[in-house]
Amino acid sequence: MTVTVLAYDTAHPGDTADLAAKLAPFAPERIRKLALLVKTEGNADVNDYSREYGLLSATLALEAKGGPALVARSTFLFSTGCEGAMTPFGYVFIDQADEGAPAAPGGRALAMGCARSRSLLPHEIGRMAHAEIAAATVEAAMRDAGVTRDEVALAIVKTPVQSFQKATVPVDQGRRVTSGHAKAVGALGAGIALGEIERGRLVESDFDADHALHARRAMVFSGAELDCVEVLLLANKQGAAGDLTIHTGFMTDMLDGGAIRRTLAEAGCRLEDGVVVDPAAVVAMLLKVGISPDGRLRGRRTTIRSSHIDMDKHVRAAVSGIVGSILGSTRTFISANTVHQAPPGGGICACIVAPRT
Amino acid sequence: MTVTVLAYDTAHPGDTADLAAKLAPFAPERIRKLALLVKTEGNADVNDYSREYGLLSATLALEAKGGPALVARSTFLFSTGCEGAMTPFGYVFIDQADEGAPAAPGGRALAMGCARSRSLLPHEIGRMAHAEIAAATVEAAMRDAGVTRDEVALAIVKTPVQSFQKATVPVDQGRRVTSGHAKAVGALGAGIALGEIERGRLVESDFDADHALHARRAMVFSGAELDCVEVLLLANKQGAAGDLTIHTGFMTDMLDGGAIRRTLAEAGCRLEDGVVVDPAAVVAMLLKVGISPDGRLRGRRTTIRSSHIDMDKHVRAAVSGIVGSILGSTRTFISANTVHQAPPGGGICACIVAPRT
Amino acid sequence: MTVTVLAYDTAHPGDTADLAAKLAPFAPERIRKLALLVKTEGNADVNDYSREYGLLSATLALEAKGGPALVARSTFLFSTGCEGAMTPFGYVFIDQADEGAPAAPGGRALAMGCARSRSLLPHEIGRMAHAEIAAATVEAAMRDAGVTRDEVALAIVKTPVQSFQKATVPVDQGRRVTSGHAKAVGALGAGIALGEIERGRLVESDFDADHALHARRAMVFSGAELDCVEVLLLANKQGAAGDLTIHTGFMTDMLDGGAIRRTLAEAGCRLEDGVVVDPAAVVAMLLKVGISPDGRLRGRRTTIRSSHIDMDKHVRAAVSGIVGSILGSTRTFISANTVHQAPPGGGICACIVAPRT
Amino acid sequence: MTVTVLAYDTAHPGDTADLAAKLAPFAPERIRKLALLVKTEGNADVNDYSREYGLLSATLALEAKGGPALVARSTFLFSTGCEGAMTPFGYVFIDQADEGAPAAPGGRALAMGCARSRSLLPHEIGRMAHAEIAAATVEAAMRDAGVTRDEVALAIVKTPVQSFQKATVPVDQGRRVTSGHAKAVGALGAGIALGEIERGRLVESDFDADHALHARRAMVFSGAELDCVEVLLLANKQGAAGDLTIHTGFMTDMLDGGAIRRTLAEAGCRLEDGVVVDPAAVVAMLLKVGISPDGRLRGRRTTIRSSHIDMDKHVRAAVSGIVGSILGSTRTFISANTVHQAPPGGGICACIVAPRT
Repeated sequence: MTVTVLAYDTAHPGDTADLAAKLAPFAPERIRKLALLVKTEGNADVNDYSREYGLLSATLALEAKGGPALVARSTFLFSTGCEGAMTPFGYVFIDQADEGAPAAPGGRALAMGCARSRSLLPHEIGRMAHAEIAAATVEAAMRDAGVTRDEVALAIVKTPVQSFQKATVPVDQGRRVTSGHAKAVGALGAGIALGEIERGRLVESDFDADHALHARRAMVFSGAELDCVEVLLLANKQGAAGDLTIHTGFMTDMLDGGAIRRTLAEAGCRLEDGVVVDPAAVVAMLLKVGISPDGRLRGRRTTIRSSHIDMDKHVRAAVSGIVGSILGSTRTFISANTVHQAPPGGGICACIVAPRT
Repeated sequence: MTVTVLAYDTAHPGDTADLAAKLAPFAPERIRKLALLVKTEGNADVNDYSREYGLLSATLALEAKGGPALVARSTFLFSTGCEGAMTPFGYVFIDQADEGAPAAPGGRALAMGCARSRSLLPHEIGRMAHAEIAAATVEAAMRDAGVTRDEVALAIVKTPVQSFQKATVPVDQGRRVTSGHAKAVGALGAGIALGEIERGRLVESDFDADHALHARRAMVFSGAELDCVEVLLLANKQGAAGDLTIHTGFMTDMLDGGAIRRTLAEAGCRLEDGVVVDPAAVVAMLLKVGISPDGRLRGRRTTIRSSHIDMDKHVRAAVSGIVGSILGSTRTFISANTVHQAPPGGGICACIVAPRT
Repeated sequence: MTVTVLAYDTAHPGDTADLAAKLAPFAPERIRKLALLVKTEGNADVNDYSREYGLLSATLALEAKGGPALVARSTFLFSTGCEGAMTPFGYVFIDQADEGAPAAPGGRALAMGCARSRSLLPHEIGRMAHAEIAAATVEAAMRDAGVTRDEVALAIVKTPVQSFQKATVPVDQGRRVTSGHAKAVGALGAGIALGEIERGRLVESDFDADHALHARRAMVFSGAELDCVEVLLLANKQGAAGDLTIHTGFMTDMLDGGAIRRTLAEAGCRLEDGVVVDPAAVVAMLLKVGISPDGRLRGRRTTIRSSHIDMDKHVRAAVSGIVGSILGSTRTFISANTVHQAPPGGGICACIVAPRT
Repeated sequence: MTVTVLAYDTAHPGDTADLAAKLAPFAPERIRKLALLVKTEGNADVNDYSREYGLLSATLALEAKGGPALVARSTFLFSTGCEGAMTPFGYVFIDQADEGAPAAPGGRALAMGCARSRSLLPHEIGRMAHAEIAAATVEAAMRDAGVTRDEVALAIVKTPVQSFQKATVPVDQGRRVTSGHAKAVGALGAGIALGEIERGRLVESDFDADHALHARRAMVFSGAELDCVEVLLLANKQGAAGDLTIHTGFMTDMLDGGAIRRTLAEAGCRLEDGVVVDPAAVVAMLLKVGISPDGRLRGRRTTIRSSHIDMDKHVRAAVSGIVGSILGSTRTFISANTVHQAPPGGGICACIVAPRT
């Protein structure tokens, strides 16, 4: 197993020209599995269909590349929102069969695992069954990657949300599972699988309520376009081939640029005056950061929770500036809402780096 | 002349409680002049009246403090938009009569000058007369401060824009003076007054067109609520009393956190790991940054000019993250659109600092 | 008692020039009470301060007209949102002392009553105490008008909502009283006072839940800018002077233009081809209409509940077209959200008409 | 030639289930040509990709139905914006080979013609060449339908706009062809083809400037997703088979419900109390309405041109109420911006009706 990570740009959510170009050197039959982690642009509101459009377009592109079989071996994780200093783009993770390739010199290298659950029943979404399925899917992805729990660096989880539009019967607005609640449940499930939340102790009344409970190596997304849980798991695996490694850090709040710099430094990147000296060594950068429940930051009021612009957009745009000023790049996968993925207002960052000579 | 700079918070645009509290120690009769530089929250769109509401509320507060006479000695500069990691707040600049106060030890200290032009006629707005009036008003503010052109650190200029709503006759949409155009003309006028743009060479066809022309020490705002040019000029004046100084720096683009750090360092602030060690020494921080005409940043596409969110909001939010991660504070006055105030995509930052023992 | 109703336009929310002009003929000492019912323009979102700005401006205008005493005799009801074919404007209701004026020829004429409750305590808002206070305030307004319950045509109720920004302690998002919930409670209170909802049967679990319960002569608004319940009550009072009368009708849904036409016809207006022949006889027109919980209309899906635009804006704009096409005027007070003020998806309309010779 | 017109609903822009169901009875080989006229939901702003998503999905659906050959015989006209009382839906126009079918009893019946121009060169867009190509494409559609100019009831024209995102070189914002300008040029071209604008007299300086020039039977749309002009032309053709006819009317402004009623009445629909008695007879209803340049309506100010919501959304929502209250249906194709398609502020409406026994 050798994992390659490439970034590709999109001129619009339906654009797959650069994806196709980046995939061109890879023979489809040698791709054991593939994952797309994509930021699409759109208004990121209930009537934004850029994610569905991007998903359909990417599926057609992979089908053109390797037929339905390649699509069946692929995982699609699309997230909307490219505000501020962010470029709409995608990462493609390619796991190639490289029998006989030597293990990474450092002993460990980037490995990936993918898994997809059965379809959730409408009444399961947002409930304990949902959390258990999320946990089982993360565990399946660990098995797929062939890694231990300790080797896991990041579980990227997509989890379904009960869609207003898809509901065939009028949904009581009050009991509707929100996107935030779906993420909460998915994160708790991931935390259980990763051993960060005690399995037997979790009760439904903790969901999106007891925020002391949180995973430490999960980024969770939700979407009305899927009815199952999907996981892309990234780990540093003993004996894997390839020269990439992944490193995870924790941000105390959205202004915690120091945590980003420390994570990069621990990954082996050199920084001068707070800026990465060799940005090309950073193959991928992912952040997920939240805002405290009262919308305050470093003790002062912000408008993040009290403006016409959804709070996630404020967060993504502000964080895009911070990481952009450190990396000198606008190609970072930034997401907001860290419910049960970090303490309230905190965040998680991860970088995949290649050694540079 | 001793200038004091204080920050005050607002719970909403009409809130003046903290302003009144911060002004309480100052006897109105000893205030020679006063200026408010305020960030109000609102949607920052054509139907946002938070600025007018804030202006009316602040005027009533100053009237309650020192009667119409204090209002007459005051300058009001309100700017909308507190996206991202920004706190809605204001700076109050107070110039006190301090006869006999010793000059600053370093020889120079912060001085302020204020000026206001006559009302512009509707046909003047956006034309050469507008630029000339802006230049003359900056020059009047220099005289008011008693400073030379070289001593000027920053001219904050507010300039009128032809309002759609105030037009008594239907305005041809095509010939309407936009907010951006009004800023452009105000900036060119400021550049002339500050000796950065050659007075005799400017022609109307350069307005918002020849972007090689730009001031270097001006931040320009526009507003439909005023019909004249207003200036708050800040300088380091030889022989002034007080211990504050102001320092200006130039950003090559919105991700240029290095420029912010250099400006702070030149002002005497100590930074460790890219973060200011003693943020309380930074009495005020002001930034104005733009985005290149094609919306690209560091060579890559952004959605700053191609989303449903106005580009200035993207910029303010992203920059709020950068400066917030450096200062550890959300109290920074951040504005976007640097037409003729910096090269395209560039910016300007300024800090007022107090010595710390 | 003679009630006069006048409409005045606003160039922006802070504009009171036309209000002052319309009030000019009225000697302040002869104004027994006064009420303003105003539609302000703004984004109608959490960071829209147009209502507060309008309220402050109108208060200053009334103070300029008749001092604090006139302000104390005045009721202010401001509602945001002028989408579609709607003009930002206000109605001013003036109750003049006209001792000896003959009673209306028809026996009944428009009367007005105003009342304001004590400040609600934070823990009361949204609870049974809130409903009881709303009921008591409507009853106080009935006494103020000197009318029986049967004479009441319309109770316009403003009710407080727990503001996120005003909260001094961090508010649990989940337990926050929403604007919709505050309206629900206010409407139930009004329904009790008007005898349309059985007083002893109401329980808190019905609030915004049992939508079979609803008032029939109430329009309820909420606002974070007030902490008490305010009521403007309109009635056709036996023995009142003046020539105005008010008529109320019920709309089955937002497309029910027939109900608007029937209400106008019952008020004595002549219609031809579905259009009012003498629109000047319609002194005031007020509508409040909702959308069904599933967002469907006449059996089909709409985007009213599933777009980035708040549902109330969709409703106001659509209804402005209907009533505008009937009245030939854009000066109608249109509001959305009829929770407990009509059956789900239904609405209420009211017109005040003057006899025309 | 027999034209059938069917409406189909969409649960979201990518949903083609009802389209497929409505097409099921039609054998692909008997479909001579097909056109889709669709309203997609989305934010209708620059970052709304619902139209592109809908277009891709519909193309895949037609390909599944009749292969690439059916797609090649099809015309796709997608328009975004379903605000207010509007259902996201599409009309499918099917022209079937019905050799030997008797001509319509009334002598004339609905006929359709489709045409598509060559790709426009970037420098042609917005210029005279663009207008000429639009005219030629409307003429080609007339030939395709086999109708005379007098038989034409409506030319639905889609015209390209220079996209910011697709520009390979940075586009000067000032010289960018806006959507409004592209529509203006397309409308002038259609007006020439239909004999409503004098061909030899048109000059480029009239484009979006001399609004006295306008077509009378055109609805024009623009889109960045196409680079050619496409036309769907509808006519009442002498000797055509089928029982549908189309009728066009003119609205003086967006509140002109009378014009809608008159058009329906002329088409043979019976109205009572301003409402259509047999709405099922109205097979299709299309409206395009504008707002005057000063944003005033019936002499009063509106916020249509001075709010954060784009003016087209205000117009569509208001008009959806009017037509919905007349038809009792939310399935109407409503569009805004009638530049050169009607006098400023005016509009056009069209209905396709079937005889009812």
